[in-house]
Amino acid sequence: MTRGYLLSVEGNEGAGKSTVLSMAAEYLASKGIEVVMSREPGGIAIAEQIRSVILDKNNIRMDARTEALLYAASRRQHFVEKIVPTLEAGRTILCDRFIDSSLAYQGYARGIGIDRILAINQFAIEDTFPDLTLFLDVDPELGLARINANKNREVNRLDLEALGFHQRVREGYLMIAERFPDRIVRIDANRTVEEVLEAMKRELDSFLERKSRMS
Amino acid sequence: MTRGYLLSVEGNEGAGKSTVLSMAAEYLASKGIEVVMSREPGGIAIAEQIRSVILDKNNIRMDARTEALLYAASRRQHFVEKIVPTLEAGRTILCDRFIDSSLAYQGYARGIGIDRILAINQFAIEDTFPDLTLFLDVDPELGLARINANKNREVNRLDLEALGFHQRVREGYLMIAERFPDRIVRIDANRTVEEVLEAMKRELDSFLERKSRMS
Repeated sequence: MTRGYLLSVEGNEGAGKSTVLSMAAEYLASKGIEVVMSREPGGIAIAEQIRSVILDKNNIRMDARTEALLYAASRRQHFVEKIVPTLEAGRTILCDRFIDSSLAYQGYARGIGIDRILAINQFAIEDTFPDLTLFLDVDPELGLARINANKNREVNRLDLEALGFHQRVREGYLMIAERFPDRIVRIDANRTVEEVLEAMKRELDSFLERKSRMS
Repeated sequence: MTRGYLLSVEGNEGAGKSTVLSMAAEYLASKGIEVVMSREPGGIAIAEQIRSVILDKNNIRMDARTEALLYAASRRQHFVEKIVPTLEAGRTILCDRFIDSSLAYQGYARGIGIDRILAINQFAIEDTFPDLTLFLDVDPELGLARINANKNREVNRLDLEALGFHQRVREGYLMIAERFPDRIVRIDANRTVEEVLEAMKRELDSFLERKSRMS
């Protein structure tokens, strides 16, 4: 059986990940690709427990390196229990955030260093990088404005960070995209939903075409 | 102000760490050294939360690398909130288990590899290794027999591991002691309490003498 693809969607707050994710899943399904949507912690009980420690608003004393290790731990469990078995069953995983979130948020924006965060995350995922990553690049001010307009969304600890932090997250993503040009594609997410979705489809088509040429 | 010393006591289950720790604290105090006892998670709320995930008996699906990352996360928070401020205040920390437990348990006994566990823990403690580590080396069968004789002690998930695991833990400690001969001293803990405590005092005297010669 052919191994499935590991695809991830990344971007800072308000980039429109949710919409892109659900439409990308539909689009892939229409091409006959069996897609499993996931996001860390992905309903994995242990990973959920870890995540609740990370997002607990009372944990204001949490050190940036503690947070980074917890994200890596949650990722590891989700990876072992869900991603690996799904890929091995020949299905494609479409993941809402993955390793690049840690590189951008902890590695760059929190100043720990992208290389250090990369090392502990390679320990977690044993070098199973995504086959394709769609990076939705939105201006942080526009992204935060979109979030604040959506009253149904629960505010978590990360949302409370200042605008400067979200600007550093974006800079981090840009650096990571430059570092991994073979798997990360940047999509300008300041545009209308329709334009962003068209760009997403073009990137998926291009990816699938490359893969079919290789097989 | 002179920085305090970071001292750790290590050993497998039933080695007699508790007794050695409390007597070592008394002995150091009698020499005029201000000692703070600690053990991870050390009453640090975030580290306690992480620890409760690790020790939860329901988490039987926890992957060895997840566990290793959680130990490193808990260690990090305890390190930042408690160890560093205590040492900087000029006081000595006497720690019940520290980095070597992760190297022996996760690195060697669980087969992840000592170097890999060392790398994620160096990320956690930023190369602040103990100044002295007392490794209480007990035969695993004797150690487990001691534990089972003590009915007041709560049984946790690690205690349920088979004897073979504890034998690998011991092998791991021996390898680590060989690797860090300058800071780790092995104390034969198969002997009577009195003999072990005498050995502990000799090692502390020797350490303090070395330090006073260096200053």
